[in-house]
Order: sequence, then structure tokens, then C-alpha cells
Amino acid sequence: MNQDSSQRIVEPLRRWIASATPGARLPSTRALVAEHGASAATVQRALRTLAAEGAVETRPGTGTFVRAARAAPPTDYSWQTAALGAPERSIPSISTALRSRPPESIALHSGYPDDELLPVRLVRSAIARAGRSGAAVDRPPTVGDPDLRAWFAGELAARTIASAAAPRASDVVILPGSQSGLGAIFRGLVGSGGPLLVESPTYWGAIRAAAQIGVRLVPVASGPDGPDPEAIDRAFRETGARALYAQPSFANPTGAQWTTDRADRVLEIVRDHGAFLIEDDWAHDFGIDAEPRPLAGRDDSGHVVYLRSLTKSVSPAIRVAAAIVRGPARDRILSDVATESMYVSGLLQAIARDVVTQPAWETHRRTVRGILRDRRDQLVAAVQEHAPRAHLTRIPSGGLNLWVQLAEGIDADRVVRDCAAAGVMIAPGSEWFPAEASGPFVRLNYSGPEPHRFAEAARMLGGVLDGVS
Amino acid sequence: MNQDSSQRIVEPLRRWIASATPGARLPSTRALVAEHGASAATVQRALRTLAAEGAVETRPGTGTFVRAARAAPPTDYSWQTAALGAPERSIPSISTALRSRPPESIALHSGYPDDELLPVRLVRSAIARAGRSGAAVDRPPTVGDPDLRAWFAGELAARTIASAAAPRASDVVILPGSQSGLGAIFRGLVGSGGPLLVESPTYWGAIRAAAQIGVRLVPVASGPDGPDPEAIDRAFRETGARALYAQPSFANPTGAQWTTDRADRVLEIVRDHGAFLIEDDWAHDFGIDAEPRPLAGRDDSGHVVYLRSLTKSVSPAIRVAAAIVRGPARDRILSDVATESMYVSGLLQAIARDVVTQPAWETHRRTVRGILRDRRDQLVAAVQEHAPRAHLTRIPSGGLNLWVQLAEGIDADRVVRDCAAAGVMIAPGSEWFPAEASGPFVRLNYSGPEPHRFAEAARMLGGVLDGVS
Repeated sequence: MNQDSSQRIVEPLRRWIASATPGARLPSTRALVAEHGASAATVQRALRTLAAEGAVETRPGTGTFVRAARAAPPTDYSWQTAALGAPERSIPSISTALRSRPPESIALHSGYPDDELLPVRLVRSAIARAGRSGAAVDRPPTVGDPDLRAWFAGELAARTIASAAAPRASDVVILPGSQSGLGAIFRGLVGSGGPLLVESPTYWGAIRAAAQIGVRLVPVASGPDGPDPEAIDRAFRETGARALYAQPSFANPTGAQWTTDRADRVLEIVRDHGAFLIEDDWAHDFGIDAEPRPLAGRDDSGHVVYLRSLTKSVSPAIRVAAAIVRGPARDRILSDVATESMYVSGLLQAIARDVVTQPAWETHRRTVRGILRDRRDQLVAAVQEHAPRAHLTRIPSGGLNLWVQLAEGIDADRVVRDCAAAGVMIAPGSEWFPAEASGPFVRLNYSGPEPHRFAEAARMLGGVLDGVS
Repeated sequence: MNQDSSQRIVEPLRRWIASATPGARLPSTRALVAEHGASAATVQRALRTLAAEGAVETRPGTGTFVRAARAAPPTDYSWQTAALGAPERSIPSISTALRSRPPESIALHSGYPDDELLPVRLVRSAIARAGRSGAAVDRPPTVGDPDLRAWFAGELAARTIASAAAPRASDVVILPGSQSGLGAIFRGLVGSGGPLLVESPTYWGAIRAAAQIGVRLVPVASGPDGPDPEAIDRAFRETGARALYAQPSFANPTGAQWTTDRADRVLEIVRDHGAFLIEDDWAHDFGIDAEPRPLAGRDDSGHVVYLRSLTKSVSPAIRVAAAIVRGPARDRILSDVATESMYVSGLLQAIARDVVTQPAWETHRRTVRGILRDRRDQLVAAVQEHAPRAHLTRIPSGGLNLWVQLAEGIDADRVVRDCAAAGVMIAPGSEWFPAEASGPFVRLNYSGPEPHRFAEAARMLGGVLDGVS
């Protein structure tokens, strides 16, 4: 009774219907059974799918017919204009990083790692186990599964310095993905109209979450080594902000990792201003030459709100993340999470916990590190050889991206369009800037499919840059 | 390598630790292997879990020890008070319906159906299939899986009257649960500070979502037959609201189902005011003596935004819902969904689609109808016999709840507390009122565990009511 078995019939039928006259009678169920070597139930399921799509209609006792294209005029929805009004806030359009890949083209634009980088076998067997367990039908507590919370706490505890108190399971709030977590944290700690310091450039999902809530972003320039602590201090002073959002390990897009000195200095400033540091440890599982160094592991007084997701490292299908947050801020954020999502699927939590507590998970992480190193080095070498006009701001020691500066005066959006036409998808740097971009940048992701085509991709980029320079 | 196997050891070890002196040495791995008949890997996983919780510490080469309770003073988080400020809005606390059940007590408070009412076998085999398919590792489009969208459209199309255009798959936005959908719809169509007409009483999750966004609720009284159309007309006129939230089929908590006359009259009023009707068809799969009659199936001009969830009828672990919405309102809502959740787990979507497209799903729905009828009738009879002071406002023809009015002057919250003390969990009616309750009510859910104890529960309720009257 595999659903895919009916899909196998739906596709050829769709093609048949597309070339048939409206009103034409489809072959009988018996004929379709014979033609496709499928069961009658499977054929009927395929017909139901087509009927639901409006492609066919079934007249009981007579047969199934290609539906006549309706000549009805399009509905007029203009009354909605007044009801909707202008949107409260202007939200950036969906990022290039979420676009699917046109056939044939090389994808350096996506933010999601290729299957090669995922623990596919572990995920599949964890799903099978979870499907047999209570997790298939149970409702977990709003705050999350106790064992998964303990695991997240333990992960951060392993990177907590001796002088700071290790986080406890009770500090952990399970989230349905880190994007949802950003919304909950920004609403809880900043709120509509409130100021929030961010690195510039910074993660587009954070910019988008802030825009939707009406959080007022205060950009602080961040280079290959992270933001200047004195600039952060100044921005806190001038705006009265009570929170800073940052990615101190392998920032997206720059790849910057803060030194421990810089981390301590920024933490000191955050403490002085009685503020929160919202630490997005998005690349925790993607260290290459360095380990992630969570600032939360250096914090003893609840100033760091720590966010970690498993979506990119376990599977895009396992949308599970966690916020680790102490003090009353935890309750504020939990209340928002409860309202927005009520609870996170216990099935996804059980699968995530199963995967990350297998001994094979550590082996997988080591494998990923090696693959990422190869991919990064290959793309770096290809860009240096074939696209000399593309300036690599930094060879990142972790993460998934190269951040590339283009010569002054070049239109990065045009470069992105020309590259797409040539057959390589890349992302325009402007999507990572909360305000105007500080220059023309593009982002190249080395975790996508077909790494053997990196040289080809770099040649296309090189050709486009030669053309626009 | 089943995770549950280590849980089997964690529990007895926790008890052992609780009664041990700090610093005590745990039995060796070898001893634990022998004692529990588990593998060394399983024992080590159990010890890691306990270490992550801070219950034990492992000294390499020496052994594992019960951790000494730290004498460190509690951390002072009072600095957070100023950083957090007062919350932007006061959000009601988490509903009684989400509480877990104390051991031994009878649960009539929960909003989630018992396993007996879930298609457990279908869910388990769908999980197994999805785990072997691409859904285990793929990222679906933000708007949702095309086949699942087609299924949701087809479901509503089957209840669309001939004179209205059937919804298409492109009108469907897949959501990570209906609670999340309420947030997206309220933000998209009403926005912070905007007025929203709601039935009173109405679903507590909608009240909570509105409170978080800062939507201004305009309650319209709703009785056993639904709200008075003229009262809705008046409320639209007086407030300039552009949206009404309602549950026209088997409303939670009252069980009311609107007649088609009332539905048409309300739709007409909604159209006259250029407004949206947000129809929450939460009990679509829980008809008993009647079928749900979606208003969206009578709408031809994009006035009805239709919300349907599979969480309660498929499994609480499969958090998948859909909004069906036409015109520019769809784009407004989709933009919010993209920002808040980015996309819904493709694994959960594949499982949901698999379950609802099996022929056995229809059989299951018929079975559920029969079970719900028995449970409803048994609880009604038990209340009538053993708790005559509890006034049933209506015998609902669908849904999961009895809405019970108490005599004037009775403190419903006290009744709830006294019932809990006596051993039966029920929910206070006040949670379903957007403002002050119109009288003392309690809600009794007949879909929970142990229906054979309904008579016992009704006797407890009867005893409590005798005591407070």
C-alpha cells in the first residue's frame, strides 16, 4: 500500500490527460491495472488523486472522464485589498538560499547540506525505531522531551569552562526549528519597536524574523574576525538596546569565528549594559579546522541565550532545535513558544535524540568534517584559479560558505543573474545585510550537490566577472 | 541500539543515586551489564545520560561517582528584570487542557483523544514507509508538499456546494499545526491592535494566539446553536472589524453546529462588511450524528479562510495542518508562515499524506464515529444520573466535549479544584471566554483514557456539586 506506487501511475495519466480532449473517457480500472501492473486499489488511489486535483471527474457506474476546462471568469478578489490594508511591516522576500535548483545548473546558493553530509542511515533507522515506540502517538510536554533537553544541556556543558556553571536540562526549551526560535526569542526579549544589535552582514532568517515582529535592527559592522567590541559598546550606549544577536562561531555568511579574547570582551560589554547576547550556534556541527566555542559556555549569569538546531546536521526533515536560557527570560520565551507551536512533535524529538545519542553520530561528525574540508578547499582553489576577480574575504575554519567580495562598482545582483543564466546558482550578498550592503558581495555555499562541478562553477563565475568588470 | 534500552537502566540508577551518598562510586560497567542484561554500549549510554543531567561524574580510569551536591549559591538573575521589562501583552497561562494527568485520576480535561481513537497502526506503518523514502532527508517547499495540498483541497472540494468553485491545491498552505496557523492568520489578516470578532465562549488557543499578537478581541455571545447573526452584524458595524473567527461545526467548547441557514446569513454579513471569516474546522473528523458542514464550501469569493488540522485525528506526533485561502490573503499568510517556520517537516507531511490516503483511513473514521457516539452517550447518561446539578447545555452532534453550566453563584474554579482532589480532572469554563465568563461553566471531554470510569467520574462531580450548592 505504498503511496509511491500510485504516484507511479498518476504521472503517466497526467500526461495522457494533458493531451486528451475534455470529456474523454479514461481507460477502465481493469485496463489500467493490466497496463501498469498495479492493484485495483492502487489505480483507484491514483484516480482519486487526479480527481482531487480537478483533472478528472468520476461518474459512478459510468467511468472516469477528463474534466472540461471551466470557462468561468477568474474570481475578483479586489475586495480583499481594503480588508488586508498595507502590511504592518515590509518583510524581505524569501531568500535565494531557499530556492530550488533549476535542472542542470550547479547549486552554490542553497543553505542546506547535501545528503552526503547527512547521517542518512542513522536517520532512517531512528525513524523506524521511533515509529514502533510511544513517540508515534504521544504528546510531549510543551517545554520538550526530558532526555533530549538533557542531551542539549550536556552538549553545551561539554564546552563550558570550569569557572562557569554548566547548563541543566531545565534550562533547555525545545523548539520546532531555529527560525521559530528566533521569532520567540526576539518577541520575548526585544518586542515590537525595540532595538536589537546585529552583526552586519548577518543571517537573513534573523533579519526576516526581526522585520516581521517590528524589531528595530541596529547593525554593527562585522568583518572576517567578527564585530569590533568598541562598536558594540557604542551601539548599546547610543540606542539603549538590551540585546545583541550574533553568530560567534563560523558566522553566516562571513565564516568569522571570534577569538576567546574577543568573546570575553563582548560578554563583558553585554554584562555592563545589562543586556542579552542571543548566540546562534548554527554551525556547531560544521567545524573544519576549529571547534565551535560557544560564548554560552563562558557565561555564568544568564546573559547568553543560546540557540542550537539539528535541522542542518541531522536532516531537514527533523526540525528540532533548542534554546538554552536561564532565569526569568526562560519563562518569557517558553510562554511565546507555547502560544506559537504548543509543543514540538514528539516523533521528531525522539528521532533527533536517537540519532545524536548513537555512537555512530560521533563517527559521522568526524566524516563530515573531512568532507567539508575537501569541499571547502576545492571551491577555494577553483575560485582562486578560475575567478581571480572574486576576492575571498576569509578561508573559513568552519561553516558552509565562502563570502566573496567583488570589485567596487560591480552590481552583485547582476552577477547573480548572469551566473544563473550561465548555469550556476549563487546568492547575492545583499540578503545578509540588515540595511544597504557595505559593498558588492556574493555567497558561495560548498555543501550542496555535485562538488565535482566546483571548477566548472568557478569558471562560469570567472567568465561573468570578466564580462561585467 | 534502541534508545529505550538505556532508559530501562537509567531509571533504576536514578533511584540508586537518589539514596546514595554524594561521592559514592557506582557499580562498574561490567557489574551493570550483568545486573541489567544489557550491552556495555547501552550501559555507557545510560551513564552518559546521567552525567548530562549532572547526577554523576565520570573520572576516566577510576569510575563513575555520584556527584556531590554543589553548595554554590543560587545565581542572581535580577538584572534580567530591567532587560525584560513588563511583557508587551499579558498572555493567559497554559490551559488546563494541556496538563498531564496525575496518576490514578480520571482525565476529562484533556483536549487530545486517547490512542483508541487514533489510527495507530496506520500511523506506524506510514512512519516506516516515510523513513525509507526521500521524505526522511528532503526539504519540501515552504508552501507544502503538492500531493498533500491536493488532498486537503480535495477534502474541502467534496463538501463544496455545486454553485461555488471548488478549492484548488494552489489555495492550500501547509502549516506546522493549527495553533501556528492561528498565529499566522491573525497576524496576516488582523495584526497588532486590530479588532477580531470571536464567538464567546471560543477555543482557548485562539484567545491565547490573539493575546500574544495584540489582536483586540470583540466577543459575540454564542449559544448551543452558534452566534446570533444580527449580533455579528452589529459588532462588525460598531468596531469596523474585518474578520470573524469561528468554529461553525461542533464548536469547542459548546458543541454547536450552525444550520445552513445561519451559515448563509453569517456569510452574507461577512461579505457585506468586506470581511474575512476565519473558519476553524477543528472537529472535521469528529462528526457523530452529523457531518461537518464547512462554510468554506459555500464561499465563492475568498471570504472564508479555512483551517483544518490532522493533529487530533491522525496523531499528536503528526503536527500537520492546512489553511485554504484564496486571493492576495494567501500570499499575506504564506509570508508569515515562511518567516515563522520556513517549512513544515517533509517527514511529517509524508506520514500524514500516507495515512489519509489509505483506504483504511475511511474505515478508521467510521470506527471513530461509533466509539465517540458510545463515549458521548455514556458520559451524558452518567452526568444525568449522578450529577443532576450539572446542566448539559446541548448534546453535541460532534466534537469531543460536553459543555456544562452550573447553578448561578457557584465558583467553577473551586469545583474544578475539588474535583481534582476527589480524583477527576475537568476544565474550568473561564478558559474559553475571551472576557469574563457569562456564568459558571465546566468542560468535560469524553475522548480521554478510561471511558469505563465515566460513571465514577460523574459521581465525583455530582458529589462535589452537592457539596458546594
